[in-house]
Amino acid sequence: MRIVIIGTGNVATILGKRFLAAEHEIIQVYGRDRLHAEELADMLSASFTHDLKHTDPSADLYVIAVSDSAIAAVAAELQVNNKLVVHTAGAVSKDVLSSCSKNYGVLYPLQSLRSELNELPDIPFLVDGNTEDDLTLITEFAGTVSNQVQQANDEQRLKLHLAAVMVSNFTNHLYALAKAYCLQEQVDFTMLLPLITAVADRLHEHEPAAVQTGPAIRNDQATIQKHLELLQTHPSLKVMYTLFTDSIRKMYGES
Amino acid sequence: MRIVIIGTGNVATILGKRFLAAEHEIIQVYGRDRLHAEELADMLSASFTHDLKHTDPSADLYVIAVSDSAIAAVAAELQVNNKLVVHTAGAVSKDVLSSCSKNYGVLYPLQSLRSELNELPDIPFLVDGNTEDDLTLITEFAGTVSNQVQQANDEQRLKLHLAAVMVSNFTNHLYALAKAYCLQEQVDFTMLLPLITAVADRLHEHEPAAVQTGPAIRNDQATIQKHLELLQTHPSLKVMYTLFTDSIRKMYGES
Repeated sequence: MRIVIIGTGNVATILGKRFLAAEHEIIQVYGRDRLHAEELADMLSASFTHDLKHTDPSADLYVIAVSDSAIAAVAAELQVNNKLVVHTAGAVSKDVLSSCSKNYGVLYPLQSLRSELNELPDIPFLVDGNTEDDLTLITEFAGTVSNQVQQANDEQRLKLHLAAVMVSNFTNHLYALAKAYCLQEQVDFTMLLPLITAVADRLHEHEPAAVQTGPAIRNDQATIQKHLELLQTHPSLKVMYTLFTDSIRKMYGES
Repeated sequence: MRIVIIGTGNVATILGKRFLAAEHEIIQVYGRDRLHAEELADMLSASFTHDLKHTDPSADLYVIAVSDSAIAAVAAELQVNNKLVVHTAGAVSKDVLSSCSKNYGVLYPLQSLRSELNELPDIPFLVDGNTEDDLTLITEFAGTVSNQVQQANDEQRLKLHLAAVMVSNFTNHLYALAKAYCLQEQVDFTMLLPLITAVADRLHEHEPAAVQTGPAIRNDQATIQKHLELLQTHPSLKVMYTLFTDSIRKMYGES
């Protein structure tokens, strides 16, 4: 496919690289900021523009990879002559693109994409399309850059987006809280890294509920009390500890 | 070392295998339940007993790998003639072993050990000893089965145990909650696995606070409101979502 990428952030950068690696052609990068547009265009061997009205009309696919709140404004200005347009957002309806083309859809990468990471992770895609033909096209295109592609409508995509926030943003916040606690208490957070990796890795073979461990599921009140005592001087952590302990007790029976 | 293992659960099983793999000799397994003792002894090419008074007096090291609440009772009965005794618990003082020998300490594996997992993960150890000599011995022994060994007293070990609960038990509970949500809402949890792996893996190179993403850190109220609406019918999840969102806002500034 010949592609125009709208946006210059993490998602635009990483998807651009993936498209290129899958032997698609990035013909142009649009960025509001001329310098950023030029930089990403260089990286992707593309031309660039910082005027939405000058996007190349000859592309097969326009990929809008800007912040959620900017998608509607971009769609309103973009002129693509009913070519295929997709956005890349989990929590935004595909129909914000209806003003911009008759052929539109979604190409949502279900990953935490940060361009400063060296190793690029696997990227599953949730795809949607305005017509059967568009959905087929977008699904096939996604299949050229990922081996995990599923069709999902706005509601299904938003639900998986919510679940993704829980398992990635909230999980990462637990890591950040634990790290801050370790720093304050002068114990070594890096000792926890093998444990963190093991808990994530085993999900590929085991149900999370089947491998739950710890004082809460054992109802080990002696240990829970020792932990709560340590948390006397960490009131926000204590609230979180109590909520999780109660939630685990609730899931596996209060007995 | 010639080792007697006290206990037949997950920790006893996995540590026994590790000791054997590091070319130590397991001379005996004790289990309250005769059948379990025999089973693990077979696996480790050891003899077995189900009477604590009949533990082999010729071992160099006695490893008590029973549940936290049973350690004191085992220590009271065990006769080891001042040989070296360790327990394997994160949240139990080493001094519960003082009744049992003049030479005692702790060998705490900082991992989620479940014997049904095929691939055994890296196991960091926190070690402690009652005397300088015992500490040196235990540290050296731990170094033969792991390349991540740190000395930690009761308080430091309890603090890391608490941090471990947060990053593993609580994280796994988030996975379990997200999986239950996906099942109820009929979306595919397995699409989240690459994301989960990526978030855990990148910790080896990045500070968790430096790679936080998601609607909360962006203060993306539009997305947060959409998520809260989805959670109207999931009140406990909604409580957790709100707590995390507030906690993330608090860590990175409320602006």
